[in-house]
Amino acid sequence: MSEQPDENRTDIPKDAPDQDVVDAAVVEALDKGDVPGVGQLVGRLHYADVADIVERLDPERRDKLVEAIDNDLVPDVLAELDEAVREDVLEDMDVEQIAAAVRELESDDAVEIVEELEAPDQQKVLDAIPDMDRRLIQESLAYPEDSAGRLMQRETVTVPTHWTVGDTIDFMRRSADDSSDGELPPTFYDIFVTDPAGRPVGAMHLSHLLRSKRPVPVTEVMATELKLIPVTMDQEEVAFVFRQRDLVSAPVIDDGGRLVGAITVDDVVDVIHEEHEEDMLALAGVGEDDLYDAAVDTTKARFRWLLVNLFTAVLASLVIGLFEATLEQVVALAILMPIVASMGGNAGTQTLTVAVRALAMRELTTTNAARVIGKELLVGGINGILFAIITGAVAWVWFQDQTIGLVIGLAMVVNMLVAGLAGASIPLVLDRAGVDPAIASSVFLTTITDVVGFFAFLGLAALILL
Amino acid sequence: MSEQPDENRTDIPKDAPDQDVVDAAVVEALDKGDVPGVGQLVGRLHYADVADIVERLDPERRDKLVEAIDNDLVPDVLAELDEAVREDVLEDMDVEQIAAAVRELESDDAVEIVEELEAPDQQKVLDAIPDMDRRLIQESLAYPEDSAGRLMQRETVTVPTHWTVGDTIDFMRRSADDSSDGELPPTFYDIFVTDPAGRPVGAMHLSHLLRSKRPVPVTEVMATELKLIPVTMDQEEVAFVFRQRDLVSAPVIDDGGRLVGAITVDDVVDVIHEEHEEDMLALAGVGEDDLYDAAVDTTKARFRWLLVNLFTAVLASLVIGLFEATLEQVVALAILMPIVASMGGNAGTQTLTVAVRALAMRELTTTNAARVIGKELLVGGINGILFAIITGAVAWVWFQDQTIGLVIGLAMVVNMLVAGLAGASIPLVLDRAGVDPAIASSVFLTTITDVVGFFAFLGLAALILL
Repeated sequence: MSEQPDENRTDIPKDAPDQDVVDAAVVEALDKGDVPGVGQLVGRLHYADVADIVERLDPERRDKLVEAIDNDLVPDVLAELDEAVREDVLEDMDVEQIAAAVRELESDDAVEIVEELEAPDQQKVLDAIPDMDRRLIQESLAYPEDSAGRLMQRETVTVPTHWTVGDTIDFMRRSADDSSDGELPPTFYDIFVTDPAGRPVGAMHLSHLLRSKRPVPVTEVMATELKLIPVTMDQEEVAFVFRQRDLVSAPVIDDGGRLVGAITVDDVVDVIHEEHEEDMLALAGVGEDDLYDAAVDTTKARFRWLLVNLFTAVLASLVIGLFEATLEQVVALAILMPIVASMGGNAGTQTLTVAVRALAMRELTTTNAARVIGKELLVGGINGILFAIITGAVAWVWFQDQTIGLVIGLAMVVNMLVAGLAGASIPLVLDRAGVDPAIASSVFLTTITDVVGFFAFLGLAALILL
Repeated sequence: MSEQPDENRTDIPKDAPDQDVVDAAVVEALDKGDVPGVGQLVGRLHYADVADIVERLDPERRDKLVEAIDNDLVPDVLAELDEAVREDVLEDMDVEQIAAAVRELESDDAVEIVEELEAPDQQKVLDAIPDMDRRLIQESLAYPEDSAGRLMQRETVTVPTHWTVGDTIDFMRRSADDSSDGELPPTFYDIFVTDPAGRPVGAMHLSHLLRSKRPVPVTEVMATELKLIPVTMDQEEVAFVFRQRDLVSAPVIDDGGRLVGAITVDDVVDVIHEEHEEDMLALAGVGEDDLYDAAVDTTKARFRWLLVNLFTAVLASLVIGLFEATLEQVVALAILMPIVASMGGNAGTQTLTVAVRALAMRELTTTNAARVIGKELLVGGINGILFAIITGAVAWVWFQDQTIGLVIGLAMVVNMLVAGLAGASIPLVLDRAGVDPAIASSVFLTTITDVVGFFAFLGLAALILL
């Protein structure tokens, strides 16, 4: 074998800028109906890159591309696809094709695909795969959605406590020779040591196993300080544990403490992305990543949030309506009125976002809640005074009226203080009440900063100006 | 050795709810000055949990806790701390203590600590550690911040191409026996195969090495399809590659293609969190996670964003000012006016957030940009019509005037269409211009939806009502 590096291997710096070029070439070949050309174009790519191209295409071209790519690639591409896109692609595949793909995948990826199928198709696919695989998939499907049970890989490497390092290495070499290959997962990081009841007693990292001599008992190499993941643990909690402990793989146990699978970091990275995405989109009132959803689904999902916001806006208008007489006398108030509400909304959103994120990362707890709220009140107060001076001066010069400057300045301080207090406390209160603070916080916040903003400004104006 | 599971090992389900209790006990012991008590309380915890407690405490208690914990724990706790907290803690430690901690850490964690010290302290710490470690740290510091060079671990396991599996295993057992232990990193996932010039030719995953027989050449076990990370690659790009390829470790190369280190997934998970955090906070106008910053730093950082927003708000007021005469005649307009602007802002933010996130995840590219904008226009149009009907009806009933209902309905359609268009295009344009869309997008968006919202509503009112 040559000792020269393989010149054909794909380097990162090269393929990143070429993305658009590859996309365009694929689109051209698809539109010409040049199936072998498409196969050649994507055949050289990593399956993850092919999945990305499928995602970027429009629905019709997607199905054509999936038909054109090599059958060997299909399972891995399917596993990599975004959920909405995968649903779309699966609809156009027949049951045999799906079953063939599911057969090729590891149990965690297979479950992800099977769980998305409609009940009759699901049954057909399950019927078309070997008994052993079917049982594993059915067991996983029995666990709640978004639980460790759905996330885990069923295939693990386990050895009994009385084995030595040599026994373990021989066992792995034997399993590799075995043509069935049913025992060993293709890639793994830890070997679990289990007691006779199947309960994990320790884990051997491969790099520790490898530097130990053959006669050493596995119980001397294994780490006993395990993070055991109960099979029902929520995936968000799993992600937290992995990040906290810098884990690469962790054993999953059932109610009886028996090892039932392992979660690996690659699946956790996907969960981390999902959870982040949920928080970020929830703050803006988008239910889930809807980039790939049909327009009608997106419209419906967003309508709900906008409707809630309409109530908020009408509420703010009702507050303004209370001061109709004041507005009739001083139209300048109508002109300046949105400034105080808008500044409060922005300042509150800053605080709110920091608090929502800190809650999600478990950095904000009862221990420091009072300190955080206190700090936000201070920040709101200082910025409130600074912006009171700036805005007051602007209003004074603009309308040649120092009283109007005073009114807007006072209202600004009030609203910025309220924004700091509300921005920090709303997420804490919601969290304590068991409501996801990312979803509901911002409506409450803008309601408060709008109502207080308009009420303080117009109310002070009515008191001072008239 | 017993075959029973260790009853004392910490399980996840137990320690999560106990967090507040532990915090309270630590605070109590600290306030009583009970140093041995504190040591006992945190001595049983994982270093990551200790770091979390340090973060949640106020600055004075933080320093007291760091003093009270065992010296063996200090290096790992320091490495786990949030940047702002670490800075605070380091300020109170003397140079010898810091140097002692840096000596214990792996090169990537050591660099993270050294890079935060002031120049004179940095020199003192570097002088106090062994030559070999110092050279590695200095080399890493020479790479740009947030580059692969800073992220990587310098210690790697490499073998030449002519070795066999047996040679590799023997080499690792020898290195483990060697008391110096300078060669092998404590935990690793891949062994890199390098040519005589030190360039990586392939990587052997340990689980593949372990199932191969001793006489097999490493060149037959290794994977040659490597993702080589150039040492200057930005960490965001590194995170993308890891997620895309489900990598656990990857070789880092210098300009000459020589292996200089390896990046492991635990560091990448931290980068993923950082990058997500940046995007989420940037959208709300918060520069970085400022939960642990002093109030004055937070106030300054947020002031800038609020000032920019003040200009936007004043601009909106100027637009309203254009219609002073109209407002004087129909005060109802002043009452309803914020509704259209607010709904546009909310609808636009939904679109904007989806677009910013899709850009960050590289799901939005030139290939699908036109389709995404088209979809957002459609969604904006449909929701615009729906909310035109609802809001028009509300306004009509409220003010007993169908023309005012018509005006607000028309303005709503216009502003929701504009919001969809602007929400999708602003991030794309900024991204094309090389500006981070997360940072600047939302100011542009609210400026547009406010200006268009007020102008369309008051302008149409001036045309139709008067």
